[in-house]
Amino acid sequence: MNIEAMQVRVREGVPLAGAWGIEVLSYGEGLATLRLPAKDDLLRPGGTVSGPALMGLADVAMWVALLSLTEGRDESLTASLAITFLRPPPATAVLAEARVIKRGRTLSYGEVMLRAEGAAQPCAHVTTSWAATRAR
Amino acid sequence: MNIEAMQVRVREGVPLAGAWGIEVLSYGEGLATLRLPAKDDLLRPGGTVSGPALMGLADVAMWVALLSLTEGRDESLTASLAITFLRPPPATAVLAEARVIKRGRTLSYGEVMLRAEGAAQPCAHVTTSWAATRAR
Amino acid sequence: MNIEAMQVRVREGVPLAGAWGIEVLSYGEGLATLRLPAKDDLLRPGGTVSGPALMGLADVAMWVALLSLTEGRDESLTASLAITFLRPPPATAVLAEARVIKRGRTLSYGEVMLRAEGAAQPCAHVTTSWAATRAR
Amino acid sequence: MNIEAMQVRVREGVPLAGAWGIEVLSYGEGLATLRLPAKDDLLRPGGTVSGPALMGLADVAMWVALLSLTEGRDESLTASLAITFLRPPPATAVLAEARVIKRGRTLSYGEVMLRAEGAAQPCAHVTTSWAATRAR
Repeated sequence: MNIEAMQVRVREGVPLAGAWGIEVLSYGEGLATLRLPAKDDLLRPGGTVSGPALMGLADVAMWVALLSLTEGRDESLTASLAITFLRPPPATAVLAEARVIKRGRTLSYGEVMLRAEGAAQPCAHVTTSWAATRAR
Repeated sequence: MNIEAMQVRVREGVPLAGAWGIEVLSYGEGLATLRLPAKDDLLRPGGTVSGPALMGLADVAMWVALLSLTEGRDESLTASLAITFLRPPPATAVLAEARVIKRGRTLSYGEVMLRAEGAAQPCAHVTTSWAATRAR
Repeated sequence: MNIEAMQVRVREGVPLAGAWGIEVLSYGEGLATLRLPAKDDLLRPGGTVSGPALMGLADVAMWVALLSLTEGRDESLTASLAITFLRPPPATAVLAEARVIKRGRTLSYGEVMLRAEGAAQPCAHVTTSWAATRAR
Repeated sequence: MNIEAMQVRVREGVPLAGAWGIEVLSYGEGLATLRLPAKDDLLRPGGTVSGPALMGLADVAMWVALLSLTEGRDESLTASLAITFLRPPPATAVLAEARVIKRGRTLSYGEVMLRAEGAAQPCAHVTTSWAATRAR
């Protein structure tokens, strides 16, 4: 599945991702990089990207990282997600780099680093578990 | 601050809350109950409310519970949020019941139980820490 | 299984629990209350109970709460545990109150409130997921 | 502070670390590697290292990683710790690799990868927040 096909996949699978304009920049071998463009309705007063937008971005990024291991078959659902906010991101695009740490039969696990575009330091860090849907 | 004023406050403070139609049903003394109406663009294929929508609802619910302790002064930001999905909610409205467990000088902490409207069992459970903005 | 039998069970199943003197005060219907007595080697300098001791206590408490639902059959393993420290406990005994929030076929989930004996406010809060061993 | 001095520091600061025989293998610049030797009383029946022992090891490892940034001054306490168990470790020594992701004025944050000695894959992953004691 090429990037364009994955992009379509993501927007169909997670309508919010389409509404927010999330783009898949790259994916493969349990890794994925996604981009959330700056949008006024995703900001909080004070001009930082809102927490729920960052959580949504991270969730979609891990989904794409997992899809990269199953040739695009959707075999799992988020079981848990924990985000720690490290610095308020400025009102710019945000990049998410997802990495599958363990792919298991019933549970998979990974982390996502979130970074304002152009920033050296992360703005948030996420860990997340996914449950196999067939085992549910 | 009455419910209507808090409602306005929430929609100004978190534009996503307004866009999603989140309502404040009650709040006071470190507790808050909010409602996310069913909306097509918050669903995932399969007809369950998407994870990011539940996370956003929980985040706003804890914010309101904290505002209930400060006469509406906004003195903290989400430092971390952890959600565990317990059952996929049906495509109905979702209720969030937030409770402040500890109000601290630099960190506050609480939990949010999420439940599909009319359901006996929770669909997700959240814990979340908030950092005082003045101490940042 | 009466309290004495459960006590033996816990000390055999978790040797650390025995070494630390953890007692089962009550359990049943997805709930359990355990007690960690004050012990010098579980303290940190400054006279507070060390974090790993609180985590261990919480882990055992949830295990007992789960055993109360299976007539003592050990059918799951800790999949994840998250602890938030709310106040340093004094150098006294600590009580743990565990509660199963969801008992699932492959994953169960619950919370544990930790409190210094005699204190009104909790010293730590734990959430934890357990995976069914037979589904692994 | 050389490795021997740090080793003494750790055993004085966390008596459990001494009792369990935890060794500091290396540390510096926000990183630390520690080793928990195999010990019968840290096992669970079935021959895997018990969860509380892994949590304790991870907690101490992050403490050393933080001490490496402050010339050994102890300026923070664990605020939260979340562990995900990925595979039961065999009854061998366990290595912990800690990394500070953010060093903040009031909150620091990092992750710890736990691995059975000689294993390619991690047995557990930890994220943890630390609060500055002077800000408390």
